[in-house]
Amino acid sequence: MSSEPAGAEPRHVLVIGIGAGDPDHLTLAAVKAIRRAEVFFVLGKGPEKESLTDLRRRMLEEHATGPYRVVDAEDPWRDRTRGDRAGYASAVHDWRARRAEVYERLVREHLEPGGTGAFLVWGDPSLYDSTLGVLDRVAERGTVALDVEVVPGVTSVSALAARHRVPLNQVGRPVHITPARRLDEASLDGGDVVVMLDAHESFGEVTGDDVWIYWGAYLGTPDELLVSGRLVDVADRIREVRAEARARHGWIMDTYLLRRPEGERDTEG
Amino acid sequence: MSSEPAGAEPRHVLVIGIGAGDPDHLTLAAVKAIRRAEVFFVLGKGPEKESLTDLRRRMLEEHATGPYRVVDAEDPWRDRTRGDRAGYASAVHDWRARRAEVYERLVREHLEPGGTGAFLVWGDPSLYDSTLGVLDRVAERGTVALDVEVVPGVTSVSALAARHRVPLNQVGRPVHITPARRLDEASLDGGDVVVMLDAHESFGEVTGDDVWIYWGAYLGTPDELLVSGRLVDVADRIREVRAEARARHGWIMDTYLLRRPEGERDTEG
Ligand SMILES: C[S@@+](CC[C@H](N)C(=O)[O-])C[C@H]1O[C@@H](n2cnc3c(N)ncnc32)[C@H](O)[C@@H]1O
Ligand SMILES: C[S@@+](CC[C@H](N)C(=O)[O-])C[C@H]1O[C@@H](n2cnc3c(N)ncnc32)[C@H](O)[C@@H]1O
Repeated sequence: MSSEPAGAEPRHVLVIGIGAGDPDHLTLAAVKAIRRAEVFFVLGKGPEKESLTDLRRRMLEEHATGPYRVVDAEDPWRDRTRGDRAGYASAVHDWRARRAEVYERLVREHLEPGGTGAFLVWGDPSLYDSTLGVLDRVAERGTVALDVEVVPGVTSVSALAARHRVPLNQVGRPVHITPARRLDEASLDGGDVVVMLDAHESFGEVTGDDVWIYWGAYLGTPDELLVSGRLVDVADRIREVRAEARARHGWIMDTYLLRRPEGERDTEG
Repeated sequence: MSSEPAGAEPRHVLVIGIGAGDPDHLTLAAVKAIRRAEVFFVLGKGPEKESLTDLRRRMLEEHATGPYRVVDAEDPWRDRTRGDRAGYASAVHDWRARRAEVYERLVREHLEPGGTGAFLVWGDPSLYDSTLGVLDRVAERGTVALDVEVVPGVTSVSALAARHRVPLNQVGRPVHITPARRLDEASLDGGDVVVMLDAHESFGEVTGDDVWIYWGAYLGTPDELLVSGRLVDVADRIREVRAEARARHGWIMDTYLLRRPEGERDTEG
């Protein structure tokens, strides 16, 4: 792919956090950003694609004021067969390289230099989302000048805590946010733990009678599910609710907070 | 304090995340919640009180549509002399107990049963904010029935990442959010680390030529300051910028992300 003449105006790319399911979790800044963009890039994948891209389209219908275009694209296929950690990281890297090519092509084909395009990102763009990483790779390729602006959003983590009306941290203590595949490295003694990207009900690996779980699925949507309680008491109920919902929808997105309440462990105080 | 007749209608209390400095980080849900409340409880403390409560008042002026009242109160004094961990936790607990009394009195005096009041919380109510903990204590006292609803907000953590246009996590890895006083327990090998509530420039304790810092102060406000780079290169610059800003404003709120980029440490991949 040839590079453009030096001195060409950069293309403006807005990376807009849209919240994790509730259309009212959109910020005023996100609404303003939506109104600035002339083209929206919607990349989806997997069985949830339809529901998740639907929400984005409805947001555009509701909030865009001028004319806009939507460019729909398939996300490049990702190798999910390599389940070990090294394999996982390298599969994600390969996938990002292929995505960089796709993003670059989309941006060049659908956006003039000086124009403004946007990616609508689920939740907040800084948390377990690859859009910024992929745009960095596009920039590294050096063939198209981009000017990236990020609009932060409400994360699914904040949505989870809000629906359960609990803080994420105990007084003066840390919070760890971890992909489920790294849950084994987290200790509830070091702070509370939020688990994301869990395909395997990893809470089953956590032991201790004094552990509490605050679980939520499809947060912010009409299908929202919430279960909380002592992990030993509610783990089976979560498995049931989760399996049933997953079968019904064909996909699930869930997240949870694990906590050992300080009264039971923090004997310092 | 006497309890109310059993069967009295609960008072509705909205705990509304308002973002951490940028008035446009307010969500549509927060705007709607503001419009539902008839009274707002504004508790402030310290030298930053004025700036932070000002922002809240301007939000109300801009977004409230009906009549509303603002109840301004001093937050009970907190013992900051006990700097060790046990002392810290117990000082915070005492302080919360005193605040529970203050909150209960405010709510009873200024809100009728069945009425709707609101607390406007900086950032997101789930992150290093005591409003939910204090309201739990009020509920435990059992003398006034409250019906609490939480509206999540954009955290200062998401604002920090957005302004630096970086993700908080590296591919497949955890993120730790920690108060500065627990930074010594965090390891950059276990994931990236976000530090909050830092009164002592604790980044100075972090060693390694391969550590990057993304620092931000007064994020989202006209006074915003950003510095990023290799920690060994920019630490002194942050100290200077921070001291100068702190002297000028009389207070500072800053937060930062510490990262060891995976290229340099993640040899597994
Ligand atoms: C690829 S990550 C994206 C996270 C997103 N950027 C955020 O800020 O929430 C997807 C994971 O986020 C969590 N998640 C996102 N939306 C959710 C929702 N509405 N309900 C429950 N979990 C959700 C799940 O753990 C899911 O596996
Ligand atoms: C008591 S905590 C409240 C955090 C808040 N609930 C949130 O969601 O961001 C206050 C700490 O948050 C961080 N903080 C809050 N607002 C900030 C801002 N505008 N700029 C930089 N740091 C901020 C600082 O680390 C500060 O010490």
